Amino acid sequence: MAAWGERLAGVRGVLLDISGVLYDGGEGGGAAIAGSVEAVARLKRSRLKVRFCTNESQKSRGDLVRLLRRLGFDISEGEVTAPAPATCLILKERGLRPHLLVHDGVRSEFGQIDTSNPNCVVIADAGEDFSYQNMNKAFQVLMELEKPILFSLGKGRYYKETSGLMLDVGPYMKALEYACGIEAEVVGKPSPEFFKSALREMGVDASQAQ
Amino acid sequence: MAAWGERLAGVRGVLLDISGVLYDGGEGGGAAIAGSVEAVARLKRSRLKVRFCTNESQKSRGDLVRLLRRLGFDISEGEVTAPAPATCLILKERGLRPHLLVHDGVRSEFGQIDTSNPNCVVIADAGEDFSYQNMNKAFQVLMELEKPILFSLGKGRYYKETSGLMLDVGPYMKALEYACGIEAEVVGKPSPEFFKSALREMGVDASQAQ
Repeated sequence: MAAWGERLAGVRGVLLDISGVLYDGGEGGGAAIAGSVEAVARLKRSRLKVRFCTNESQKSRGDLVRLLRRLGFDISEGEVTAPAPATCLILKERGLRPHLLVHDGVRSEFGQIDTSNPNCVVIADAGEDFSYQNMNKAFQVLMELEKPILFSLGKGRYYKETSGLMLDVGPYMKALEYACGIEAEVVGKPSPEFFKSALREMGVDASQAQ
Repeated sequence: MAAWGERLAGVRGVLLDISGVLYDGGEGGGAAIAGSVEAVARLKRSRLKVRFCTNESQKSRGDLVRLLRRLGFDISEGEVTAPAPATCLILKERGLRPHLLVHDGVRSEFGQIDTSNPNCVVIADAGEDFSYQNMNKAFQVLMELEKPILFSLGKGRYYKETSGLMLDVGPYMKALEYACGIEAEVVGKPSPEFFKSALREMGVDASQAQ
């Protein structure tokens, strides 16, 4: 394995995950992971560009950043690439009006989006809001469209909370895909488009990022 | 196309579907489909054996037969092949104790099954009971097993009610399959095993059935 100095030669920017890397979620908002506050501070003092790239889709970027700042991180909203704002850009570009099946905490990200007379469906990690009734409504909206379009903010299988494993958005994406016989468009990691948009925002080429 | 007389040569038994063939579900239990009561009566007067093969898994066989008799059909519980009793046979054969995610209407079919300390999960069309909490519980039970076993009573995508299209069990089966990285065992149509058990109960070989 190449030494770090060698591996980092030519690297100009660093993309950092947030949940499970900078902090662990849980009661009272969560806790910083040991050493991560100082690691971010050191990166920011270095010659490297830093950007945060998350699949968090239960919270708005504002709420997430407020939480991280409370935990001691030097981070601002403009430094975060997240699926909800990325989806809003796509919706605007393609003139799409979504039916939203998302957590209340992230709904504000879609505040500027027209949701009347929907011609697509957007799902995100909705937690308890993944009720049968809400899933059925999303399904019915899709089935009424000539060409059903489904966006999924990430496709994670599950995540860990202090209370145990929790189903993420991926299983519900698969449910709607199967019910409607369609394939969802995933916005968020591991979609290459999502990483590319984070790099674009950082002004760094893929070959120069770690 | 061969004439019916020719096509039916050698046929000794007929398997009939129930929902959407004999009756349509809906308000107040549903309504017989025009001509179906008389068609069943004629088949029963003929030399052919008749058996009913359904994926109904919101009602027990008892409740289903009571509904059909009220609509005028000549049918008894012993003539019906349904996923829930077929699943009970499999559970007993393999010494499995299920965690049940099923509609309350069909729970009585599992009355003789040990559900303590579960070592598998059984899901059926649970309707409103497909809450996030109930799905997450089924997911957690599966993830705690060394070798997760999931039975799905049918794998239908959706069905039609007077109020509109309704998600069936299939999408929720896909959700759990994806979350756990497993493949469910489907009990019910279109599983060949399910049709074979119906034929066995009728005492007719597959080549002699229509």
